[in-house]
Amino acid sequence: MTDSGVRILITGGGGFLGQSVARALLARGGLASEPGGRTALARLTLFDQAFSIEPIQDARVQYVTGDVLDRELLSRTCAAGVDAVFHLASVVSAGAEADFDLGMRVNLDGMRAVLDTCRRQNAPPRLVFTSSVAAFGGALPETVLDTTAATPQSSYGTQKVIGELLVNDCTRKGYVDGRTLRLPTIVVRPGKPNRAASGFMSNILREPIKGEAAVCPVPRDARMWILSPQRAVDALVHAMELPAGAWGGNRTLNAPGITVSVEQALNALARIAGRDAAARVRFERDAAIENIVLSWPVQFATDRAERLGFKADRGIDEIIEAHIRG
Amino acid sequence: MTDSGVRILITGGGGFLGQSVARALLARGGLASEPGGRTALARLTLFDQAFSIEPIQDARVQYVTGDVLDRELLSRTCAAGVDAVFHLASVVSAGAEADFDLGMRVNLDGMRAVLDTCRRQNAPPRLVFTSSVAAFGGALPETVLDTTAATPQSSYGTQKVIGELLVNDCTRKGYVDGRTLRLPTIVVRPGKPNRAASGFMSNILREPIKGEAAVCPVPRDARMWILSPQRAVDALVHAMELPAGAWGGNRTLNAPGITVSVEQALNALARIAGRDAAARVRFERDAAIENIVLSWPVQFATDRAERLGFKADRGIDEIIEAHIRG
Repeated sequence: MTDSGVRILITGGGGFLGQSVARALLARGGLASEPGGRTALARLTLFDQAFSIEPIQDARVQYVTGDVLDRELLSRTCAAGVDAVFHLASVVSAGAEADFDLGMRVNLDGMRAVLDTCRRQNAPPRLVFTSSVAAFGGALPETVLDTTAATPQSSYGTQKVIGELLVNDCTRKGYVDGRTLRLPTIVVRPGKPNRAASGFMSNILREPIKGEAAVCPVPRDARMWILSPQRAVDALVHAMELPAGAWGGNRTLNAPGITVSVEQALNALARIAGRDAAARVRFERDAAIENIVLSWPVQFATDRAERLGFKADRGIDEIIEAHIRG
Repeated sequence: MTDSGVRILITGGGGFLGQSVARALLARGGLASEPGGRTALARLTLFDQAFSIEPIQDARVQYVTGDVLDRELLSRTCAAGVDAVFHLASVVSAGAEADFDLGMRVNLDGMRAVLDTCRRQNAPPRLVFTSSVAAFGGALPETVLDTTAATPQSSYGTQKVIGELLVNDCTRKGYVDGRTLRLPTIVVRPGKPNRAASGFMSNILREPIKGEAAVCPVPRDARMWILSPQRAVDALVHAMELPAGAWGGNRTLNAPGITVSVEQALNALARIAGRDAAARVRFERDAAIENIVLSWPVQFATDRAERLGFKADRGIDEIIEAHIRG
């Protein structure tokens, strides 16, 4: 990090998570630097294919519209230097399953373009990459441990694990100071449904609260490993702020979360928003969604993450209440 | 496989392993097909950057000289159809560590080019891919199990694990019927030393037997997980012949091997080729080689491979004796 302030790049900066991280960084005013001080935010660059959201009005923020595969644009964007990169740009699970080539391009070639851009910096930037519970699947132990082998059962999960491996190797080579978080499914996601196969868990809470109907494509007893948007943002910023020594040689981490079934979520919804709200959800099974989502693990022991100071939500009620508060 | 005979492609067909597999296939006359019969070999295409060896004289063999990254050449090579691919082309361990970009190009982009070529066939070809013990490293259990997480500590190992993931995912998608073998270090490799960091274990046996001096870059008590060339060829052909159902959803397999220390190898050399031969080895430590090779695991429990019929050598004496017989 430079003395004149930290320069941060967020790929996928127009997305929900990118925008949330951007707002958190602006509110904090920078990043904690090695000895526990804070390095002021000098520049925050949001890079995305398109920005459909209301732009953040802040002199420190700049917008770059383009493709994460466009190495020349990435290179120009980082020409004045970059100290920290949140690489969030990604084709989501159902999208990568429906269009294999698109997933490979964005999730694999995009990752390589970002890593190559970091490598060409004078000093290796810190990089936070978001992987996913989709790194796991198939025959799994009841509780996934920090040592459990990645066994992705989807193209999305495969591409995320490949990204983890590249982040690890490029860190070992000194090209970047990388940190990968395998995030739980984020619930309650605000805004409109996206192509994430796991999106229904947000839909069946968010839509009924707004008075709208929602469809649940999996059975009532289906469970998920989830984290609230606020905790996810905290985790990404914490991953960036931790010193390299805390990470050691293994730069991939299972983030904490909580296990919640559809039934538990709907019961909490009924408690908090009323029985009428919960009644707005109807069940209509979707084999394509089930195949992806039900292959993911639902329970982890995240000892390493907890030792490193990452935190889960206390329960689904807290998550729903925070969503309603907005 | 077609009724008119099986068409086989070997990438890295000019290398030691590619040539050995080619000779084995020609001698066998084809591949066992699903019900246990044999499908005659119609065409065997050896694809490599260069062929420095004496060409095999056989009407069924054709040579293609080119780069495994050259998708157009691969496509033309497979235009008349291909039923089975041995993808052996690779930048070896020390080479991929010394030149990161070369390793990424050949080991990752080359793999993708081969998979894309397979995907464009009318029926998904079988594909055997060679991964390595370099998939593992760092803090490992004393015995690596079939469920142990891949933790590569070199760019070569990283690129091999990425290849495994892509083979698995492309198999799941129905683009190819892939099978990956994580091979032990092959000992005794014939011919000249190559850039494989593990090559010394062959050198310290092969060179003294020829009456030449050899250098051992690791300590006497260093151990390795090894397999003879003959067993490696048998394993690759067996991996190809096993029906898809035997593999199931997990297409990556730790191949059997035996654990041998430098000391045990030199003692066996003295027993078989005489004390004079063993005295031709001098020790001269090399940190770069040690960093790569000593990060690899030396002991596996290969239950799954044994259930599937893969076999290890009986001991280092048998391996040295077979090498001397040639």
